[in-house]
Amino acid sequence: MGDAIRIGIVGYGNLGRGVELAIARNPDMVLAGVFTRRPPDQVATVSAATPVHGIEALDVPRADIDVLVLCGGSKDDLPAQGPGLAARFNTVDSFDTHARIPEYFDAVDAPARAAGRTALVACGWDPGLFSLNRVFGEALLPEGETYTFWGRGLSQGHSDAIRRVPGVAAGVQYTLPSDAAMAQVRGGARPHLSTRDKHTRHCFVVLEDGADAGQVRQAIVSMPHYFDQYDTRVDFISAEQLAREHSAMPHGGFVIRSGSTAEDVSQVVEYSLKLDSNPQFTASVLVAYARAVYRMNRAGQVGAVTVFDVAPGLLSPRSAAELRRDLL
Amino acid sequence: MGDAIRIGIVGYGNLGRGVELAIARNPDMVLAGVFTRRPPDQVATVSAATPVHGIEALDVPRADIDVLVLCGGSKDDLPAQGPGLAARFNTVDSFDTHARIPEYFDAVDAPARAAGRTALVACGWDPGLFSLNRVFGEALLPEGETYTFWGRGLSQGHSDAIRRVPGVAAGVQYTLPSDAAMAQVRGGARPHLSTRDKHTRHCFVVLEDGADAGQVRQAIVSMPHYFDQYDTRVDFISAEQLAREHSAMPHGGFVIRSGSTAEDVSQVVEYSLKLDSNPQFTASVLVAYARAVYRMNRAGQVGAVTVFDVAPGLLSPRSAAELRRDLL
Repeated sequence: MGDAIRIGIVGYGNLGRGVELAIARNPDMVLAGVFTRRPPDQVATVSAATPVHGIEALDVPRADIDVLVLCGGSKDDLPAQGPGLAARFNTVDSFDTHARIPEYFDAVDAPARAAGRTALVACGWDPGLFSLNRVFGEALLPEGETYTFWGRGLSQGHSDAIRRVPGVAAGVQYTLPSDAAMAQVRGGARPHLSTRDKHTRHCFVVLEDGADAGQVRQAIVSMPHYFDQYDTRVDFISAEQLAREHSAMPHGGFVIRSGSTAEDVSQVVEYSLKLDSNPQFTASVLVAYARAVYRMNRAGQVGAVTVFDVAPGLLSPRSAAELRRDLL
Repeated sequence: MGDAIRIGIVGYGNLGRGVELAIARNPDMVLAGVFTRRPPDQVATVSAATPVHGIEALDVPRADIDVLVLCGGSKDDLPAQGPGLAARFNTVDSFDTHARIPEYFDAVDAPARAAGRTALVACGWDPGLFSLNRVFGEALLPEGETYTFWGRGLSQGHSDAIRRVPGVAAGVQYTLPSDAAMAQVRGGARPHLSTRDKHTRHCFVVLEDGADAGQVRQAIVSMPHYFDQYDTRVDFISAEQLAREHSAMPHGGFVIRSGSTAEDVSQVVEYSLKLDSNPQFTASVLVAYARAVYRMNRAGQVGAVTVFDVAPGLLSPRSAAELRRDLL
């Protein structure tokens, strides 16, 4: 395809792999290559045909890449890579440290703007699609409350915490939305709910030989901050069962806006995701937004942007006329 | 407020009344007036302070109106009013005859563009928010299927149909999503479903004196096109109960995208509305989009546009920096 959008992937973990899979599902895109800090010959891509380069290959502008999808982490990778790469490329990233988004936005905006590049920051599903639904909810129903619930989803931080408990050989933790809180909100009530009120926790634990199940359970459910204030369920399973049933990375959640348009007239808007694979879905979101970034840059919209700045039609490979005819 | 957005309402039925209610909930907006084909002194607005004018007051451009919200019907009102008013004002309308949207878009685009006005057509929730979610679904998960379910909602056309059955004094019909079809789709299956497979119908009927309930029921459930191919339930109630319990205009529905990002990796995105008042919610959507239209016009984006062209951040009264800080 002569005018396919050429995407580069920076960093090749679960997210980068998901981007490779997503590009293969978008016929108007081609994968220009993977750029990694590892020795390129040690990176096994999904397709053997995918070119893998050292990340230093991005130290100069390249005419063969339209948009880079940055797949590094928010803690160490993106704060360094994002501003630098935005000075030479159009970029999309999933920076997800909510509290530091304004600072990161500014750090990327200046170099992107100076170079005439477009950099979409903090994309994915939260921040990202969930954020969009928070903005829609508030704008459409100014009198109301917004509720974000996460799960059922694997929580990396809480899984790490239970693995540090003496007697635990391995384990995972899922965060679940509380059924009772969800029912209240969906019913149009507008309760005050903390994160803790909205979620429960479910642990699957493999015990070390000779460990006491009762003691381990107690150590987990009473762990400060992580579990003590939540309704926590602990199930003990075998190492085989853990490997078989708990190695995927499911996630999801809900954004609910409950509002009124007149006294006693309740209106409820709900958005939800049920994801078998969190990184693959996030990657799919980044790839659709890479298409939008490519178009925005060609239209002269440069600098840092967020999902709030992207007209939804730009995400689709179809023309505006086709979208109006078929999907409006 | 010196720079409040000044909105005019054209047509004052349930939708126009909803727009008046919505403007009162948006502190950055003021209602410039209602414009009606009826004698202005016969129109009872929600607020006695609302100015009411004859529609001919819009025959010339007016400096006291930023955006007109057109609240007429798609069959007769908008095809005539939309293009004419877009030549003098920024407009938002809820044109909802899906098949005729491309033609209507073109009819509005030319005069709006010539006059440097911005005209958002076919806004509301379907077309509108549901359309957005169809575009997002397809763009984010190219390998998948999109399902739109409507209801539980009052259907005007089907209510009219049952009222024409001999022996029926009064009645209403609700369209409901089929629980079985919803469960299949939510579970990640991608069945082929017609509109009929996806919905059931529930009628509340008041019999005329001496009418035979069995005959009336049979006449309804066997009515060609309207009911014969649906699972239809008919309940007989009193005129009092009908007035008490069935005079609101609830509606809602679901847009579900069920897709895959790799073999056997299912991802489900669901958007739903549960509305106590269909016209009030539609009005709230139109008002939020009126804000966006005002801003797009000031930014020089003229001509006809749809929800696909509107960056979500433009819907919010908050600044882009505030949205990034608080809602991203």
